[in-house]
Amino acid sequence: MTLKFENAYVKDTDVIVGKLEKEGPLKHYFDKYYEDGYCGSKTWEQAESKMAFETINNLVERNKVDLLFGGDLLNQITASSFAASKVNIPFLGIYNACATSTEGILLASSLVDKKIVNNVLVNVTSHNNAAEKQFRYPVEYGGPKPNSATFTVTGSAGIVITNKKTDIKIDAATIGEVVDYGIKDAYQMGAVMAPACAKTIYNHLKALNRDLSYYDLVLSGDLGECGKRILKELMKKEYKINLKNYNDCGTMIYNIKTQSVYSGGSGPACAPLVTYTYILEEMKKKNLKKVLIVATGALLSTTTVNQHETIPAIAHAISLEAI
Amino acid sequence: MTLKFENAYVKDTDVIVGKLEKEGPLKHYFDKYYEDGYCGSKTWEQAESKMAFETINNLVERNKVDLLFGGDLLNQITASSFAASKVNIPFLGIYNACATSTEGILLASSLVDKKIVNNVLVNVTSHNNAAEKQFRYPVEYGGPKPNSATFTVTGSAGIVITNKKTDIKIDAATIGEVVDYGIKDAYQMGAVMAPACAKTIYNHLKALNRDLSYYDLVLSGDLGECGKRILKELMKKEYKINLKNYNDCGTMIYNIKTQSVYSGGSGPACAPLVTYTYILEEMKKKNLKKVLIVATGALLSTTTVNQHETIPAIAHAISLEAI
Repeated sequence: MTLKFENAYVKDTDVIVGKLEKEGPLKHYFDKYYEDGYCGSKTWEQAESKMAFETINNLVERNKVDLLFGGDLLNQITASSFAASKVNIPFLGIYNACATSTEGILLASSLVDKKIVNNVLVNVTSHNNAAEKQFRYPVEYGGPKPNSATFTVTGSAGIVITNKKTDIKIDAATIGEVVDYGIKDAYQMGAVMAPACAKTIYNHLKALNRDLSYYDLVLSGDLGECGKRILKELMKKEYKINLKNYNDCGTMIYNIKTQSVYSGGSGPACAPLVTYTYILEEMKKKNLKKVLIVATGALLSTTTVNQHETIPAIAHAISLEAI
Repeated sequence: MTLKFENAYVKDTDVIVGKLEKEGPLKHYFDKYYEDGYCGSKTWEQAESKMAFETINNLVERNKVDLLFGGDLLNQITASSFAASKVNIPFLGIYNACATSTEGILLASSLVDKKIVNNVLVNVTSHNNAAEKQFRYPVEYGGPKPNSATFTVTGSAGIVITNKKTDIKIDAATIGEVVDYGIKDAYQMGAVMAPACAKTIYNHLKALNRDLSYYDLVLSGDLGECGKRILKELMKKEYKINLKNYNDCGTMIYNIKTQSVYSGGSGPACAPLVTYTYILEEMKKKNLKKVLIVATGALLSTTTVNQHETIPAIAHAISLEAI
């Protein structure tokens, strides 16, 4: 399903990252970061919630905010809930794994576009150590992983969507369907999510009767190096689309060759950390005019993986336009 | 925040329950039920997902559905995601614990009201054994609990919201803020959620300039016997409102005196199982004309409880009107 917006704009963004992200290629875009993974807290979970609160609070201090959408990878999205408990703003929790950011943006854009509310904050977070501990093993174990694995980014990313005109318009959104290719290996997230990503890109272009050349850049959320190759192949094979002017946020936030991040970054914060900084700056400079962001999510839990279930995936696309 | 709707109606509902719910006071309203908690599946989690799929599929077969909102208590809402993977409908995952049903209804109503989409399905589930295993101990352990504990209902509840007029109008909704009273005891969910419930009821009445007498019935989601008493006391003490024509879905779905359910039912499916059956039937018969449903959610995880964090809570209200 594709929605077109007339009055949805990016008003403000705020991001904070961890040490490894600050050492990556986008270091100059990340002013705020924590050297220490605990962020001065006692647990990884508190650290994630603290980062969530900080970006939310910074945006609330700079903007009028009517409503907050929040989500993260922690069980029962507690990083977002605890952050929301510290601000007096109506809160709606959302979860589509690493596609949560675009889920929130498309809901926020729908609401502000029709003036149901005027200013909506969407905040997502992820924390490498908290995610590793919950989904795999505590990092202290030092368990080896295959190179196809992805690396959950540490950071929080918030965006305020408004119906008053700014220089970045949210032009359209495509809501994804859940796609299950039958893959059961949680170390193959690129392969798990690429089919959902391909389907959403195809549906988006078809619904708006657009050619891929309409966009200066198509960005997937966190497919990593492996997933990028699979996506390109799938687009060509299944949809006869030659994917160019394309990149993946998971391969942009880290230096894949020198930082030990396997196939690339992942996590709900991955796509928005790249989008809200480097991409929006390039759009404001008019180096990029039309960008399609396709955040991708793997809908698994430790329980489903341990029970040998398949891993379904989803992808939601947001079309941004510099005006 | 309170939203008023002009064109949001209940088109169809579908529910399925477990054995204990079928043996409760609302037995005549529950046509479909599973005698066996596994629902013919191999795991509790598969059973929950199967129930989710069944109500979703029944509604999709009877109605045109443009978009699906789904949520449940399982880590990473996998019951809903797996069910969604079996239907080709755009999917948005939501999570506000046991307030997820009203979160979905208010989002669906906002979207259909402004004709962004025309028919939206909101489905929520919970499963007693899956929830006990995940949040506490496998039920086979037979660990004792205090009488203030609540009992997660087993069932799935779906509703289709449309903008074409039917006999049940969704009149308004109030989006709750997260309220944290500092309680850390996960066996006191009534006490945890009552403050959020009270605040949402107060904000709702104030925003619409309504008196409590406007409603024939106010229903909280799953406060249980203990939470009901606390809510009444809080409403009187903090907001000078004498709560009457009031009941709690958690105390209606079971016979608290004869069924071993402690303080009453809970879980995302609790409020909608009561609302979509008994309440809507009474409204259709015009025995009830105006009803306020306030589903309540406790925003905890096993991690936050084990780390001795407080338990924040939230409540979202939906005003229904028989026309």
